[in-house]
Amino acid sequence: MNADSLPIGLFDSGVGGLTVLAAIQRRMPNENLLYLGDTARLPYGTKSPGTIARYALQAASKLVALRIKLLVIACNTATSTALPDLRRHFAPLPVIGVIEPGAAAAVESSRKAHVAVIATEATIGRGAYQEALQRLQPGIRVTSKPCSLLVALAEEGWLEGRECESVVARYLNPIFKNEDAPDCLLLGCTHFPLLLNPIRNILNPDVRIVDSAETTAQCVLDELASTGLLRKNRNKGKVRFFTTDDPERFVHTGSLFLGAALPLNSVQLVDL
Amino acid sequence: MNADSLPIGLFDSGVGGLTVLAAIQRRMPNENLLYLGDTARLPYGTKSPGTIARYALQAASKLVALRIKLLVIACNTATSTALPDLRRHFAPLPVIGVIEPGAAAAVESSRKAHVAVIATEATIGRGAYQEALQRLQPGIRVTSKPCSLLVALAEEGWLEGRECESVVARYLNPIFKNEDAPDCLLLGCTHFPLLLNPIRNILNPDVRIVDSAETTAQCVLDELASTGLLRKNRNKGKVRFFTTDDPERFVHTGSLFLGAALPLNSVQLVDL
Repeated sequence: MNADSLPIGLFDSGVGGLTVLAAIQRRMPNENLLYLGDTARLPYGTKSPGTIARYALQAASKLVALRIKLLVIACNTATSTALPDLRRHFAPLPVIGVIEPGAAAAVESSRKAHVAVIATEATIGRGAYQEALQRLQPGIRVTSKPCSLLVALAEEGWLEGRECESVVARYLNPIFKNEDAPDCLLLGCTHFPLLLNPIRNILNPDVRIVDSAETTAQCVLDELASTGLLRKNRNKGKVRFFTTDDPERFVHTGSLFLGAALPLNSVQLVDL
Repeated sequence: MNADSLPIGLFDSGVGGLTVLAAIQRRMPNENLLYLGDTARLPYGTKSPGTIARYALQAASKLVALRIKLLVIACNTATSTALPDLRRHFAPLPVIGVIEPGAAAAVESSRKAHVAVIATEATIGRGAYQEALQRLQPGIRVTSKPCSLLVALAEEGWLEGRECESVVARYLNPIFKNEDAPDCLLLGCTHFPLLLNPIRNILNPDVRIVDSAETTAQCVLDELASTGLLRKNRNKGKVRFFTTDDPERFVHTGSLFLGAALPLNSVQLVDL
């Protein structure tokens, strides 16, 4: 098999990273893709850095053993904790996380240089977005907040309604209901794009909302183009899914995140 | 060491089982106790039966290896999935789960023989409470509902307020806001006693609320008394805690569930 025909590997703690996979498919429909969701051990976002790093290494090793040409950490928590380690461990394999691309999109969107970041406890605790934003635009103001319950809301499929909006409001109102509010909200968790409607409903219309799925996909495209590794065959690429827990559950929740039905026979149960 | 001086071992996916530990301490303050919270892999409630059974066996094996005189599965999800397996595997060690005692308390509380059970997706899916209630009182009516978000609310420490009540109401109103409603609510998850206030606020005062912590503790007392294994030494018992993730996080959330400060030096990190 030519190197360009090897698949791109993506992993996440669960199904949230499927929003990144969908964005890659839109840009590069002929690429072969492998996606691993470590659903048995989700969520990563409330675990300690040592545990997250260990789980991320196990998930990445599984994909690398299947032979891939590029690794995407399609999970904010794992990116914030394990990106440098995974780059070192698997060099020279290119490894792309979701944080740098998300931060770049936010810097571009904010006219007041004041960005709010919402993410899991672990991502916020590591300060990864704060650092990335400062690196891209020194002096930028960052207001960050862990929002663990939004992950549970998305997983439960409660994507609208009074309960959903009141939970979103409890997290966001203290940030946005004041004179000196940020003008950009960065969704620092791959689960949060599902909650776009209730989030929009409580924010002023001039607040821009960015998520990292699209810019991460662009990063992958740029990397493959610059190294001559874009797949030359123009046929539609194959996609295979791996999950560490019940495949039926993966298909059920995954379809919500992918925005399309996920065929059960494309999903394989694995142990890490 | 005499058999009666051996500790009672308890395990849970996280800190919820500490409500059971507290109830045991109130009844038997001189017993030595070991508590294992598999916090790195929580929650169990959204995982598949095979995965839960494997995790439960690993957690129980850790406690049994440390020598215990009785095992308590202080987790509804693990009890519903793994109780018969663990009894077989560790016989003749007595193994007590939280479901039978909870069901017994509900049967006693309901005058209309109509009980509502709320629990995790896995516990409800296994039908364990439904079966136990039917066994204790054939013909009893059971209305059951998975309430995954209540676990996340309790873990986040959002135990009151508008958001909390609106989430609780979305789950409970369809059950209780009708003429033929149950008169007893069984809290089938060790996390739920923390949400007692918002739950009470939306229920009619004549609905009785039962949780299994107290009746499970009574079951443990009865079992030890009948086998002569109650600890004879009247000094205060020692309690040791084990967690599979960050001990500081265990102490932080655990104190909430225990209703008392948990000393960090009593908590040890273990790998299963």
